Amino acid sequence: MIPFNKPFITGKELSYIEDAVASGKLSGNGKYTRLAQTFFEEKYQFKKTLLTTSCTDALEMAAILIGIEPGDEVIMPSYTFVSTANAFVLRGAKIVFADSRSDHPGIDEESLKSLITKKTKAIVPVHYAGVACDMDMIMDLASAHNLYVIEDAAQAIDSYYTSRNGQRLPLGSIGHLATFSFHETKNISSGEGGLLAINDEQFVHRAEIIWEKGTNRASFFRGEINKYGWVDIGSSFLPSEITAAFLWAQLEHLKKIQEKRIQIWTRYDSHFSNKLELFGIKTPTIPSYAENNAHMYYIVAKDARQRDFILKRMKESGVLAVFHYLSLHKSEFFTDCHDGRDLPWTDLYSNMLIRMPFFLELTMDQVDQISQMLLDIAVEYEN
Amino acid sequence: MIPFNKPFITGKELSYIEDAVASGKLSGNGKYTRLAQTFFEEKYQFKKTLLTTSCTDALEMAAILIGIEPGDEVIMPSYTFVSTANAFVLRGAKIVFADSRSDHPGIDEESLKSLITKKTKAIVPVHYAGVACDMDMIMDLASAHNLYVIEDAAQAIDSYYTSRNGQRLPLGSIGHLATFSFHETKNISSGEGGLLAINDEQFVHRAEIIWEKGTNRASFFRGEINKYGWVDIGSSFLPSEITAAFLWAQLEHLKKIQEKRIQIWTRYDSHFSNKLELFGIKTPTIPSYAENNAHMYYIVAKDARQRDFILKRMKESGVLAVFHYLSLHKSEFFTDCHDGRDLPWTDLYSNMLIRMPFFLELTMDQVDQISQMLLDIAVEYEN
Repeated sequence: MIPFNKPFITGKELSYIEDAVASGKLSGNGKYTRLAQTFFEEKYQFKKTLLTTSCTDALEMAAILIGIEPGDEVIMPSYTFVSTANAFVLRGAKIVFADSRSDHPGIDEESLKSLITKKTKAIVPVHYAGVACDMDMIMDLASAHNLYVIEDAAQAIDSYYTSRNGQRLPLGSIGHLATFSFHETKNISSGEGGLLAINDEQFVHRAEIIWEKGTNRASFFRGEINKYGWVDIGSSFLPSEITAAFLWAQLEHLKKIQEKRIQIWTRYDSHFSNKLELFGIKTPTIPSYAENNAHMYYIVAKDARQRDFILKRMKESGVLAVFHYLSLHKSEFFTDCHDGRDLPWTDLYSNMLIRMPFFLELTMDQVDQISQMLLDIAVEYEN
Repeated sequence: MIPFNKPFITGKELSYIEDAVASGKLSGNGKYTRLAQTFFEEKYQFKKTLLTTSCTDALEMAAILIGIEPGDEVIMPSYTFVSTANAFVLRGAKIVFADSRSDHPGIDEESLKSLITKKTKAIVPVHYAGVACDMDMIMDLASAHNLYVIEDAAQAIDSYYTSRNGQRLPLGSIGHLATFSFHETKNISSGEGGLLAINDEQFVHRAEIIWEKGTNRASFFRGEINKYGWVDIGSSFLPSEITAAFLWAQLEHLKKIQEKRIQIWTRYDSHFSNKLELFGIKTPTIPSYAENNAHMYYIVAKDARQRDFILKRMKESGVLAVFHYLSLHKSEFFTDCHDGRDLPWTDLYSNMLIRMPFFLELTMDQVDQISQMLLDIAVEYEN
């Protein structure tokens, strides 16, 4: 049986957790939290980062920071994880769902302008599969309409965007705020975990307060104030040092992890490109301005029936390929709130996208075997 | 140097984390989460429990579950951690702060009746130092006014209340909902962590949905439904299996941990009771209906000047005794929202309470040494 995902350890996680215990600090904002945050700030040029217990929590921090109030509108793709929306719904926002692109599950940048109203407060592009949205177009639009941009970079660690002036920018460093996930399926993981990246200076001070339960405790420990207290809303967004120590071990291996993942991705693609199209199945498109962080290898079946056949037959053969998001605009929670616009590409990816098994310990032999299996099933479906 | 707190490991934490990695599941709601939840449900007769990333998050779940809406009033002590309040403020509640008791930092049950209005939705008693509030009185009042009771049992794991009919009830099993903390300073710890205990059946189903980001994923994995989706608000309240595995190792040692903590508490008390009162310093009161889970040993100085002198001199001698909460009704965030009532006992504990070093590895010799040091400082202060 080949699972869809399999967590791994680099070997250092447990000794770093032991070190955290020995240091006398297991609650949040200790040595390993600072090591991880400094790593992200230096490597990806984020102005300030804060580890969180999940990407969901990082999104909730973003919603608080941009001051979402009941009635504010937030534009995001319907083809995304429920947390992208819920984080803003919790603060009273009205979600306006955009469609995906025809060539990619990412948000259809061309459609955004028509969705902006006087109540729009933010755009939340999701870098699906770690592949960049057209950030120049989104940032221009946001700037023209005085909107915040929060990059949902849950899947996009170590991925890049080349701007129209030729700058190569890490995803998450472009919007006013950005959020990352370290959930077990992500390239770098701490089981559950996340990161808020702050690029707009105006949010740095308050972010730290919100992160520490609405207190100015961080300033207190830096010796900037005499005592700390309740100064704002907030939550316990920070993870323990156990979580941070685990994450730090993975970050030390980021380069090796990425090399191996890119190898897996490339191997899948070598089997599939030019071959799957014979069966009406599409392989991933990487726009010219985007790089590929090998978070995921997905294919898009020609219809729902073919998709379901493939998933079923692969499972019977011991391989767990899986579908992904369901259109949020058609969910039980949101369907009555949606404005009735058709989002055909969202529905298409909901019904036809397949994610291939993808984890660090996957061997090239296994990739070859899975790929051949898929090709055989595609032939079988035609007959 | 003797710190105020020192986290410990029982020895099994790391092998359980390794086991979780090997099992292929590091995100939340796996084997160790279920082991821990079952343990709590069986040992303490909670109807249903859900691990959370913090007690703060458990309180936020409670606020969502009881349907807090803007303008609803929630009564709680002012002498508590900021999260007790913030969790409800985030949902738009108006906090009505009650004073502490004269003989104990817990909420003054006698004062509650006068604070109830038509807008009151809930009472949140905090079992300070793990010592029970008068739950019969609180539950009667709640029942008479149709209010919810949420026990903030952050410090109260393995503590009990004897009801007026002679039943011995675990704290957290009495209110409609209850919340626990596994922060590093708590008896049982996972660095950061918490638990929501649900005693009122009506909340069980929705709690699981809110916990899983507003999706019915838990039902899906139990095979009760065909596919899962967005059905409600919610967040990523669940901790990773790394955190749960760590916690499970501690839970296995709960009995030994509690025996040692009670030994430490009793040793402090044997040095202090009858001696500190000569200097105007009070030792803890445990009401007859309450038991002591040895979460904390605190004393109450005769005034702020004596308190500060003791803290300063102990620190100079290498012992970190610490103060605790600051009156929330006087905080920067809340002072303009407070209705002006004087809460003298809250202010007294804010200004005069001292927590003694308290952790599992503290030896009896160290307790003796710290206690003698305190007695010497009390004499020194008089001269």
